[in-house]
Amino acid sequence: MTVDSSPRRSGGRDARRAARLHAHVAREPFLTRTLAPFEVLGDEGLSLIEQNADTILQEVGLEFRGDPDGLRLFKEAGADVQGERVRFPNGLARQIVQATAPREFTQYARNPDNHVEIGGMHTVLAPNYGSPFVRDLDGGRRYGTIEDFRNFVKLAYMSPHLHHSGGTICEPVDVPVNKRHLDMVYSHIRYSDKPFMGSVTAPERARDTVEMARITFGADYLEDHPVILSLINANSPLVWDATMLGAARAYAEANQATLITPFILAGAMSPVTVAGTCAQTLAEALAGMAFVQLVRPGAPVILGSFASSISMQSGAPTFGTPEPALVLYVMAALARRLGVPFRSGGNLCAAKTADAQAAYESAATFQPTILAGVNFVLHAAGWLEGGLAIGYEKFILDLDQCGMAGVFVGGVDMSENGQALDAIRENGPGLHFLGNSHTLANFETAFYRSATADNNSFEQWLEDGALESPQRANKIWKRMLAEYEAPPIDPGIDEALNEFITRKKASFPDSDV
Amino acid sequence: MTVDSSPRRSGGRDARRAARLHAHVAREPFLTRTLAPFEVLGDEGLSLIEQNADTILQEVGLEFRGDPDGLRLFKEAGADVQGERVRFPNGLARQIVQATAPREFTQYARNPDNHVEIGGMHTVLAPNYGSPFVRDLDGGRRYGTIEDFRNFVKLAYMSPHLHHSGGTICEPVDVPVNKRHLDMVYSHIRYSDKPFMGSVTAPERARDTVEMARITFGADYLEDHPVILSLINANSPLVWDATMLGAARAYAEANQATLITPFILAGAMSPVTVAGTCAQTLAEALAGMAFVQLVRPGAPVILGSFASSISMQSGAPTFGTPEPALVLYVMAALARRLGVPFRSGGNLCAAKTADAQAAYESAATFQPTILAGVNFVLHAAGWLEGGLAIGYEKFILDLDQCGMAGVFVGGVDMSENGQALDAIRENGPGLHFLGNSHTLANFETAFYRSATADNNSFEQWLEDGALESPQRANKIWKRMLAEYEAPPIDPGIDEALNEFITRKKASFPDSDV
Repeated sequence: MTVDSSPRRSGGRDARRAARLHAHVAREPFLTRTLAPFEVLGDEGLSLIEQNADTILQEVGLEFRGDPDGLRLFKEAGADVQGERVRFPNGLARQIVQATAPREFTQYARNPDNHVEIGGMHTVLAPNYGSPFVRDLDGGRRYGTIEDFRNFVKLAYMSPHLHHSGGTICEPVDVPVNKRHLDMVYSHIRYSDKPFMGSVTAPERARDTVEMARITFGADYLEDHPVILSLINANSPLVWDATMLGAARAYAEANQATLITPFILAGAMSPVTVAGTCAQTLAEALAGMAFVQLVRPGAPVILGSFASSISMQSGAPTFGTPEPALVLYVMAALARRLGVPFRSGGNLCAAKTADAQAAYESAATFQPTILAGVNFVLHAAGWLEGGLAIGYEKFILDLDQCGMAGVFVGGVDMSENGQALDAIRENGPGLHFLGNSHTLANFETAFYRSATADNNSFEQWLEDGALESPQRANKIWKRMLAEYEAPPIDPGIDEALNEFITRKKASFPDSDV
Repeated sequence: MTVDSSPRRSGGRDARRAARLHAHVAREPFLTRTLAPFEVLGDEGLSLIEQNADTILQEVGLEFRGDPDGLRLFKEAGADVQGERVRFPNGLARQIVQATAPREFTQYARNPDNHVEIGGMHTVLAPNYGSPFVRDLDGGRRYGTIEDFRNFVKLAYMSPHLHHSGGTICEPVDVPVNKRHLDMVYSHIRYSDKPFMGSVTAPERARDTVEMARITFGADYLEDHPVILSLINANSPLVWDATMLGAARAYAEANQATLITPFILAGAMSPVTVAGTCAQTLAEALAGMAFVQLVRPGAPVILGSFASSISMQSGAPTFGTPEPALVLYVMAALARRLGVPFRSGGNLCAAKTADAQAAYESAATFQPTILAGVNFVLHAAGWLEGGLAIGYEKFILDLDQCGMAGVFVGGVDMSENGQALDAIRENGPGLHFLGNSHTLANFETAFYRSATADNNSFEQWLEDGALESPQRANKIWKRMLAEYEAPPIDPGIDEALNEFITRKKASFPDSDV
């Protein structure tokens, strides 16, 4: 059924089926939901949170640190600017965003089959982001390397269930901090042909990302084709800092897309309540998106929300609990009302290994992600330990969940074949359906076939070695990497990219800040 | 927070908090949702499935085997009865059900604090049902015993997250088949004071259950107080057999409640499609509920749906895939339209151990269970191996998920305290909320505190022994059983029950059928 689910099948019918389904996946490189999103709050509640966000923007305001030009733009737009504190007259931030931010946009990929639509009824799934550590069953937990980074780019490329190559899938800690963005961006371009994310750790690294995209796609092309999407996190509560503003500015100036995301551990960085966290998130996101729209009206922005609760005993972030799920549903509704694409969710957990805790917690975030209608999903595969680590086995297990989401959002087939009334007429009471002509005509595609689940009898499972799911996933990622083949690239572009990277790396000394 | 989540806390504030929350749980022994259910199909699609169910009832009909009196009742009600095949003129089964079946009813418990409301916006969570095997980390997998049965009754009694004692939580294989119902029903009555389920393996065992309930509650009381709820499964496709009909009749005659459940492995016992499986399920359930209403108009019935897909390679049931989730959402909507309580879902999986597969699969059934607004949930805790086994550790992990569902269905607190606008005003940009007065006033109850998750740092987790979640759960159930205290019972009732059981057991020889 999928590139990563064929260990038990070979040749003949199965191979034809795999080819057919793979072709299907290649034709639809993102999810398009047929289901209306789940709502946890009515109009009145949502309006109240919007009013509270406006009150925060008006009375408290936000600090925009180390960006004098941004302060000038806000002042010119009518904001009240005192030092670095920016207060917005009632509704101003919302007006700025709604005036020019697109409701929906296309992020372009090197392979046109992999362009993604971000917004509306679409859901784009991207891998884990930002983990300094990696974990696999063989080596345990260790710092990530550029080889790990490339491995995850390859695995994301091979899976039909991820639509995006992501960004800092793991930190390549063996490459100096001030140069690793070059190797990361190159890996996304060279080892995948899906859309990718850019560097945000310094404005000049954002500009390097744009430059590499220009080499790959052509400078003119970038002017009206977003090919980079980058993650701009607020410094909650109510602060946008110079690094993030500088990176956001670099991308906006090149008409490239940004995810404007308040990253909130509720109780530490926002009030402990759902409604309070949502009002603050909306205020921060509105201010950040307004900044981008003032820098370059019309540059694509996504309203992001990353909200977790914390343990009030230890201060540690917790995942999979009900409160962040409620925040996610509310924020998705607020983004729809505002009219911008929404990012949130993923397969998040606090678990250290891919155990039951990891799976329960991940599902408790991922199902709301799908049911709320999130448009761009970072961390859809691999996340462990509150993001401190990415797991190879967790990555494979999460891919399977992504695949199931793809089927679920298609909803119920109400065609005549889907209704299957003749099958029931043909069958009658007391006879099984295994040989029914309707069953025979539909069984190959009737049910999602998990790549990682063991559905065999207990006795068969024992005979197969009594493997738990991470052990099965371990075999899958190794086989995928062994079978990996790089997508084609124009040799001239590849040479130009390498020349750029070599020149850049030689132009300044290594540094780990 | 809960009886089963206090290993790391002791005395003082935590003890007070535990007592307070336990008191809270005791006051509301079932969930009452504030959220509208998630829908996957509009009116048109639901109507079409209803029409198809009517067509099945009219054209194909069902077989009611070995129950001549039932056939007589159907004939008198206007059905077309040919041998054991019963066909319903268009809409007849629906009319019979809607005329007398209650929309909602109370199941009464020995402890009035534990009465449950079944139907409407309420959700009642009950443990696993029917597994011949049990599993724990120490002993592995083995046949269940009456001691295991008692243990699970005790664990369900101690958990604030289960509202019901269930029925055949596991099969006590060390007691003869024809006598074990006496020990099971006694265990529910003696070791718990929550509502429970009765025997259905033979009509006379159902009558024994009713007799024991009469001893416990008083014969008059039973006449207008359902105290037993029993699971009546169809023999899909389109057959109701003599054993199930006899048990259903015994309970209905005593005005006790039944779950009328087509148990369907789609592809084997129904067509491979969602819409086809739903139409057949509705037809089977309507016919079964009509039987109950003809036997005793007004006897409480619940429309049940248990639908899993199968592996089209091995025929093995699969769980956690998207198709059964769609069936669940559709069936919940159909039950609402019909106006009867709905049973489905649970924490279902095909996994052999409480690993990541178990958790992903369980969550993929349990979240739809909660979001669809299921009224009675069997298998909410413990299920493994497609129901062949119940796991002690899985039971504990599932309880935690049940607890989270309880918080989630409460929705978003939009009170002034919930909005927390003053907290944000007080705080301002760049300062954390840990010392904020709003945080201090709310932190004890702000977030669901998991009993089983480890949210500590990786280093702390290593120091604590690098335990995975089943290992932590293992400690919890052992501590719970060590701390168990039986609820009080009138010594006269206890004596009468034991006398009844002793007399019954002596009145016929042991048999394993």
